[in-house]
Amino acid sequence: MSRILTGIQSSGRPHLGNILGAIKPAIHLSEQPDNESFLFIADLHSLTTIKDGERRREYIRAVASAWLAFGLDTNKNTFWRQSHVPEHTELAWYLNCFTPYPMLANAHSFKDKAERLSDVNAGLFTYPCLMAADILLYDADIVPVGKDQKQHVEMTRDMASAVNTQVGEAVFVLPESRIDERIMTIPGIDGQKMSKSYNNYIDIFLPANELYKVIKKIVSDSTPLEEPKNPDSDITFRLYSLLADDNQVATMRQNYEKGGYGYGHAKKELYELIIDQFADARERFTYYMENNDALEKELRAGEEKARAVASKTLERVRRKLGYT
Amino acid sequence: MSRILTGIQSSGRPHLGNILGAIKPAIHLSEQPDNESFLFIADLHSLTTIKDGERRREYIRAVASAWLAFGLDTNKNTFWRQSHVPEHTELAWYLNCFTPYPMLANAHSFKDKAERLSDVNAGLFTYPCLMAADILLYDADIVPVGKDQKQHVEMTRDMASAVNTQVGEAVFVLPESRIDERIMTIPGIDGQKMSKSYNNYIDIFLPANELYKVIKKIVSDSTPLEEPKNPDSDITFRLYSLLADDNQVATMRQNYEKGGYGYGHAKKELYELIIDQFADARERFTYYMENNDALEKELRAGEEKARAVASKTLERVRRKLGYT
Repeated sequence: MSRILTGIQSSGRPHLGNILGAIKPAIHLSEQPDNESFLFIADLHSLTTIKDGERRREYIRAVASAWLAFGLDTNKNTFWRQSHVPEHTELAWYLNCFTPYPMLANAHSFKDKAERLSDVNAGLFTYPCLMAADILLYDADIVPVGKDQKQHVEMTRDMASAVNTQVGEAVFVLPESRIDERIMTIPGIDGQKMSKSYNNYIDIFLPANELYKVIKKIVSDSTPLEEPKNPDSDITFRLYSLLADDNQVATMRQNYEKGGYGYGHAKKELYELIIDQFADARERFTYYMENNDALEKELRAGEEKARAVASKTLERVRRKLGYT
Repeated sequence: MSRILTGIQSSGRPHLGNILGAIKPAIHLSEQPDNESFLFIADLHSLTTIKDGERRREYIRAVASAWLAFGLDTNKNTFWRQSHVPEHTELAWYLNCFTPYPMLANAHSFKDKAERLSDVNAGLFTYPCLMAADILLYDADIVPVGKDQKQHVEMTRDMASAVNTQVGEAVFVLPESRIDERIMTIPGIDGQKMSKSYNNYIDIFLPANELYKVIKKIVSDSTPLEEPKNPDSDITFRLYSLLADDNQVATMRQNYEKGGYGYGHAKKELYELIIDQFADARERFTYYMENNDALEKELRAGEEKARAVASKTLERVRRKLGYT
């Protein structure tokens, strides 16, 4: 049984890029019989960038609702808000005291920000320690990460080793990173990587008419309707290919290549496919967004499970460090 | 009613310098009818320098026993171990996110360490945020500090203001520092300031024979026994003056000045005065050191009181930041 840990960003409502690139792959992994997944909403990390309380509250709800909408099995796995398990910040402090200052100062994530230090808060400097606490509290074996995150897992291993050496006992499990080589980049409506910061994303949970409006904005070239079109260079076709089955994709490809088929037709088909394919998820998302009690109930149950694990790890550490 | 907050270092067994310079003045302050004192053992801070768990456990017990031995009224005031109130580290994280990196990098306490950065851990860099949390959690009005600590209270005010401004409400009380101008420097047995790091301290809780041995080591000049001596330049006399009443001091002064009175005599009188004056404190200290259950009971009661206050403050902050 491998314990897989995933931190979920809560810096916005999940969009199609998050769903295809993060939520669905993680849920798929969590369904494997040999895996037990620990998935947490990293809302403490969000404070390094988002200060507004109303926005945070809304994002946390939307992120939680989206994961539940896509069928995450919260009985088999553990799903919680980081901010509801105080063990995270407590262990982060202990790890701060075992982390050489230069390790943080030399981290890629910090060096990238070095020219505008006055905008950098101390949370942005020390968050690798909080991230290490997130991982170590749950004795995680595997942390699936993007390439840019690999260093964080290495730093986590360094901190864990420093503590293990100090206390003369393996109080921490050393996690392994697992890099997903098959990087799935979902194009946004302008063809760049779909991202909240580029404001080019498709929010599949929008009301149908608003969703259609966004899809109509997908950028296309000016080839006239009658002429044949190259599907492979078209954003609408690329998005459709990510969702449709092989037959549907082949049919649309033919339509593009034979001519007499406009981008508007393709967008309509993409819209209808999204509405159809995500009908259940849209309904469940709306349910959780409108029934906060149901959402809270799920999250609180997860938080109880998470704390049961985290408090045991922390107790082990506290005993060795002389706090109990 | 003023709320006074005091953090108590737990980096060693309290010695005579700590007792006269910190414990007794703080207890005196806590007894004033208009004051309510919050006094905590800063054992989370101790991890920035002390890594060994056994040493920490021993120091925490000794520090707690000493404060109780000197009669701290734990009914009127609140006395707890920082490490048993997880609200401290949680609020410290929030404050990290409101603290500009340069504020910490420019702090005196960090600049002093800048030449040997590889020995500096991240805890030493960010501890002003934890210290601010220690203060702000309890809505402290006044923080008595030495001159070197004044900057910490100023940083605390800056962090509190940043949060208050962000959330548009005074969730934090802005504390005032109160500098003790009458700096009481207790000489160690070598005449330098009494300090654990100089290894020149008098541990009044030692068994009587060991205590006497330490006192006999107090440095003196080589004036022969018969000759008159200058009391004002002698360390034994200075220590005696800090403890004895005016009559006792006058008598010893006469003895020094008339001659025929050796340093050995003065040391014996100092030893006897300590044994006599601290008889009750020594007995109570031994009681708590030998009855861990009694000590734990006191501390746990204090921790319950502290958490009741701290959790309310934290809840106020969490609501405003969108965590609840």
